[in-house]
Amino acid sequence: MYYIGVDIGGTGIKMGIVKEDYTLVDKSSIPTDRSFDYKIIVNDIAKQMDDLIAKNGISKDEIGAIGIGCPGAINSEKGIVDYANNLYWEEVPLAPALAEVTGKVVKISNDANVAALGETKCGAGKKYHDTILVTLGTGVGGGVVIENKLFEGFESKGTELGHMVIVRNGEQCSCGRKGCLEAYASATALIRDTKRAMEKNKDSLMWKFSPSLDKVDGRTSFECAKQGDKAAQEVVDEYIAYLGEGVSNFVNIFRPQAILLGGGVCAQGEYLTKPLKKFVHDNTYGGKNIPEPEILIATLGNNAGIIGAASLVIPD
Amino acid sequence: MYYIGVDIGGTGIKMGIVKEDYTLVDKSSIPTDRSFDYKIIVNDIAKQMDDLIAKNGISKDEIGAIGIGCPGAINSEKGIVDYANNLYWEEVPLAPALAEVTGKVVKISNDANVAALGETKCGAGKKYHDTILVTLGTGVGGGVVIENKLFEGFESKGTELGHMVIVRNGEQCSCGRKGCLEAYASATALIRDTKRAMEKNKDSLMWKFSPSLDKVDGRTSFECAKQGDKAAQEVVDEYIAYLGEGVSNFVNIFRPQAILLGGGVCAQGEYLTKPLKKFVHDNTYGGKNIPEPEILIATLGNNAGIIGAASLVIPD
Repeated sequence: MYYIGVDIGGTGIKMGIVKEDYTLVDKSSIPTDRSFDYKIIVNDIAKQMDDLIAKNGISKDEIGAIGIGCPGAINSEKGIVDYANNLYWEEVPLAPALAEVTGKVVKISNDANVAALGETKCGAGKKYHDTILVTLGTGVGGGVVIENKLFEGFESKGTELGHMVIVRNGEQCSCGRKGCLEAYASATALIRDTKRAMEKNKDSLMWKFSPSLDKVDGRTSFECAKQGDKAAQEVVDEYIAYLGEGVSNFVNIFRPQAILLGGGVCAQGEYLTKPLKKFVHDNTYGGKNIPEPEILIATLGNNAGIIGAASLVIPD
Repeated sequence: MYYIGVDIGGTGIKMGIVKEDYTLVDKSSIPTDRSFDYKIIVNDIAKQMDDLIAKNGISKDEIGAIGIGCPGAINSEKGIVDYANNLYWEEVPLAPALAEVTGKVVKISNDANVAALGETKCGAGKKYHDTILVTLGTGVGGGVVIENKLFEGFESKGTELGHMVIVRNGEQCSCGRKGCLEAYASATALIRDTKRAMEKNKDSLMWKFSPSLDKVDGRTSFECAKQGDKAAQEVVDEYIAYLGEGVSNFVNIFRPQAILLGGGVCAQGEYLTKPLKKFVHDNTYGGKNIPEPEILIATLGNNAGIIGAASLVIPD
């Protein structure tokens, strides 16, 4: 049996055929129709599936079910996208509509949630059943897996992991609060803090790596710190400390077996995880009988969305 | 059928006979033997049960099972108290030992966890299945109920809700970190902040309510604020804002249907919950499709431990 994973984004819809053992057979991508009528997207996805399985010589009977990862606020029990601002959607019954068109069982969840499930089922967290994925990108998102199942909160509205205040009255966050983890540990925050450090340290190596402030990206501070630049190292240390406060909070609250890190900043690998692990060791509720979580870099990369979506429907 | 709830504390062991509908039939209390041999306590509990059911004309056959709430780090799956510093216990197999002596099924969990379960099954949260209990006492503790079941984290080591940093590098917390919720929202923290405000405001009404600093308690600021004292009102406002940051974090992370507040500070009732509810409304990840949690005062009071422990074993 094969399973279909659908990763809906604001600009494109990625789809993959995934085997029971989580092997990705083939994938395709189509542009996202952003007209207001969701039925167009539903028909687009159905056709995309027909094309992809035909190309691979797979019959529709061999497809077990379809999983969808979608940005925004989802009610996964009902299969409804309550709200997705990138898609201009409100109360769109995406899963039931696609089920009707394709004749298949369709499940849906938030894109960060399915990435967490995928990473746990067959990625960095596959040895574990209690994990938290924290994604460090434009924002900070994530998902929580408890006993191999997604935890989503009432009406699937939980696990807004980036919107936990760690600095009361701190930096402004996009959500309206001040001092959220996202306002310190996102790539956006890292870039902001890198620029601030550059403005204060005109002789920093960072000016060579990124000759003007608009050239600064998430690598600037890390790469220059590796070369011994003091101002850059301070940016990195502070970034890891803020991220560490957030991750330590998650560990005290959830006590997962592993924290999985995704998103652009994770390209730093051990340069990120090693000091982070020390911070979390030093700052979590401890004692010799308390299990310590692993801190690992997510491994599914660009396919996390597709494989995660498929993991919603692949049987254990 | 009847169920036994056992609430183990550092000085006393409270026990109750609880019916399937959560009615408390009768209860008793014995001193906690704090010698190092846990088998003494096991035999004490077995005898306490025999005495209590005999007194109530209930035969041992009518006892369905025994639930225990115990302070410290518990492995509830194995029934082991990994560590309980009040009892000088380390790796004590309490549940299997009591099961052997009594011939009954015995389940155990952390005392804050069982209180959360009890409040959800038959207390303030009985209309709900996704709840969080936050206790505001000497420390800040709590428990999380997801779909009517206790969530405890890997090896039952999660839900250290008081040890979530909300003010990076803030007030020293008993756990070693700085700026934890407990360091701002416990009764201990409230008393500290009340004293600080009194030292700064020698003309405050608080000096009449509590004529010396060692007379200050958790009511001082609240009671004087109710009478219009400005300095006291500032203490209360700040307290509620800190608590609000923590509760808002829990709401964004877990999205429960209800937050239940326990512990001494809760005697303030609506004077606490009303402004707290507004803070949480204003500070949680929102939108019209996002369900808003209720904020309620726990209702089981002194029996929360007994009834909570029994709720571990009372069938749904």
